[in-house]
Parts: sequence; C-alpha cells; structure tokens
Amino acid sequence: MGTPPYTVVTGDRPWPARYTFSPAVRVGNLLFISGTTATDENSQIVGRGDMAAQTRQIFRKFERLLAAVGASCDNIVQTVDYIVATENYRATADVRREFFKHAFPTATGVIVAGLLREGALIEISAIAVIPGPST
Amino acid sequence: MGTPPYTVVTGDRPWPARYTFSPAVRVGNLLFISGTTATDENSQIVGRGDMAAQTRQIFRKFERLLAAVGASCDNIVQTVDYIVATENYRATADVRREFFKHAFPTATGVIVAGLLREGALIEISAIAVIPGPST
Amino acid sequence: MGTPPYTVVTGDRPWPARYTFSPAVRVGNLLFISGTTATDENSQIVGRGDMAAQTRQIFRKFERLLAAVGASCDNIVQTVDYIVATENYRATADVRREFFKHAFPTATGVIVAGLLREGALIEISAIAVIPGPST
Repeated sequence: MGTPPYTVVTGDRPWPARYTFSPAVRVGNLLFISGTTATDENSQIVGRGDMAAQTRQIFRKFERLLAAVGASCDNIVQTVDYIVATENYRATADVRREFFKHAFPTATGVIVAGLLREGALIEISAIAVIPGPST
Repeated sequence: MGTPPYTVVTGDRPWPARYTFSPAVRVGNLLFISGTTATDENSQIVGRGDMAAQTRQIFRKFERLLAAVGASCDNIVQTVDYIVATENYRATADVRREFFKHAFPTATGVIVAGLLREGALIEISAIAVIPGPST
Repeated sequence: MGTPPYTVVTGDRPWPARYTFSPAVRVGNLLFISGTTATDENSQIVGRGDMAAQTRQIFRKFERLLAAVGASCDNIVQTVDYIVATENYRATADVRREFFKHAFPTATGVIVAGLLREGALIEISAIAVIPGPST
C-alpha cells in the first residue's frame, strides 16, 4: 500500500479508525495540528458555555500531541482561533499565558457562522516547529 | 523584474493572467494550495447542491496540481474545509477515503457565512509535502 | 526561562507586552504572519468602509515585518483573507498587483460572521519564505 511521506502523530490516546483525518502530522521540523475542539476522551465537550475552559482543554490536547514528539506548547508558531461568540474571548488570552511560557506564537482569530461540534465555542488549529531530525 | 523565491505550480491547465493569486506554489518541500472550489475548466461549479460531489471535484483539481510536482493527494498534510451548510458534510469523509489511500492528513472544518463563488458549498485549501529537491 | 525554538519578528514598531501573540515568527526559511487588520500605530482602523484601503494598510504592515528579515511582499507564498462583506472585494485584487510584483502567492478568501476588530472589513494572515540561513 505504500507509506505516506509524513508521520502521523496521535499522542497517547487511541485514534478511531473511522476518522478521515489525523490529529497531527509531522513533516520535517513542522508539526501540523488539526482544528481541535474541547472534547475529552469520551467525545464530550469540556467547559460548556465557558470559552476559556474550552481553550484550556484544547491546549491540553495540543500538549499531549506535542509531548509525543518531545515538544510542548512553546513549540507552537501559529494558532488559528475559530469562535462562535465574542463573549469571554478576551479570557482566552490568560489561557495562552498559561501555556506559552517563553514567547507567543502568531495568532489569527475570526468569528465563524458555526462549528461542527455541538457545544463547541472555539476551535483552534496550530502549527509547531520541532527541532531535531525528523523521525 | 526579478523572480519570486518560490515556484508557481499551475498544473496542466492555462491559468488566467487576470487572477491575482496562483493555484499552488512550491517552496522547498512544501506545496501550498489555494482555497479551491468545485469549478471546472469553464469556471462552472460541478455538483451543484451536492457537497460530496463538489469535494470530489476539488480533490481532482488538487491531484492535477500535485501531479505537476510528481505527487498525489497522499502528499497532503493539511486541509482546511470552509463550508456553508452542514447537510451532507459527513458524506465528504467518504470522498477523503477515495483520495487518501495511505494515511489521513490533518483537517480543520468550519462553517463560514459565505463563499465568494456562487453555488459553492465547500472551499478547501491544502498544504502538501513534496519529497526530493526543490526545483 | 528558556528560549522559544523560533524568532519573534515585530518589525520597526514596539509591540505591546499585553498581547498574547506575536505579529510574526520565523522558523527556518518560513515566516508566519498573524491575522492582521488595517490598524495604524494608534490602533485605529485606516480606511473605514473601504476594503481596498484596508487591504493596502495590511500589506504595508506586512512589508514592515518582512523588511525586518530582509524580505518584501514578493516573499509571501500564502494569504488567507477573512472578509465581512463582499462589496468591493474585487478592488483588493488591484492592491495585490501593487504589492506582488514578480508572481502571485496562493490565496484563500472566505466570508466570516465577524472580525474581532471593530470597523475591520478584512483580516489577512500570511506565510512567507525567507531565503538564506535562519537567524
């Protein structure tokens, strides 16, 4: 069947075979991370109605993916926030301070008409840089 | 006039000079692909009212661009789906299985307020990895 | 505290410490640029009600960031336009011709439900390629 020219990164959780996307893929020194909502291991939204709590859950999921390649949120160079409401969006800045300890990545934030996951107030995608040889 | 520090990739179709963007550009081992709708060579939308058919047409257009650099959809590492309705969005997962044969790239999917192309239900942008020396 | 695995690029303007994102970051030969609106140095929108003027201001801000790494808009390989209305969007193509002199980058353009900056009609993010050794 051949192999893809990149490495799929799933972190420490099983990844359902029915999904037609990977949570993250590594190519060279870049890690692309899929748009992520604040779901937990049971696919339930954490922090219903609380955008800051949802953002924290998303960054925790990023950390698990990044840890699998020896990195942390400090390796993130780009985030894109897709939000469905503006209330409490400012509170997500404090969550960024919790996870980005050395500097801040670039950011884009836009208000969308909706997110696919019911109950999600925010979805974030990211790109990270992973120093060292690619696996 | 100088030359850009990247290679424009247009595939096997002529690209209208009036457009102020390129369908794809290569830099090093990355290929950036513009947001693409399901238009055909006559700029008509293929698969009106059918999101899965539109997605298939978009991936076919990606394949033509990727073939021009010796690659296929299996080289895609990131897709971003911008959709205007959620009906039948699940059907696009089956289209992904048609084109991604070895593994799945990352994905982000959001509902936008509108797309610029009349009749388009979905627009997809992508990034691919192209092994081997840059041209 | 450690250092991030990338270089923050702020151009020739002071960057407020309260912001939890960087205007641009460089990693290897790529420069990621944050989603940018047409604000001036006093955080006021330039070109109220005029999408082309706002686009011009955004590209001028890109030029300042790119100049800081010895580059120009001709180094941009990807733009993503998030717009809140379609009137006069075509006029932004002429602005692209002013700034992209040798070739055109890829582009994605979508209509969003809103932008965070009051008065902003368009927000653009970008990725550029910076030849030569990373700093």
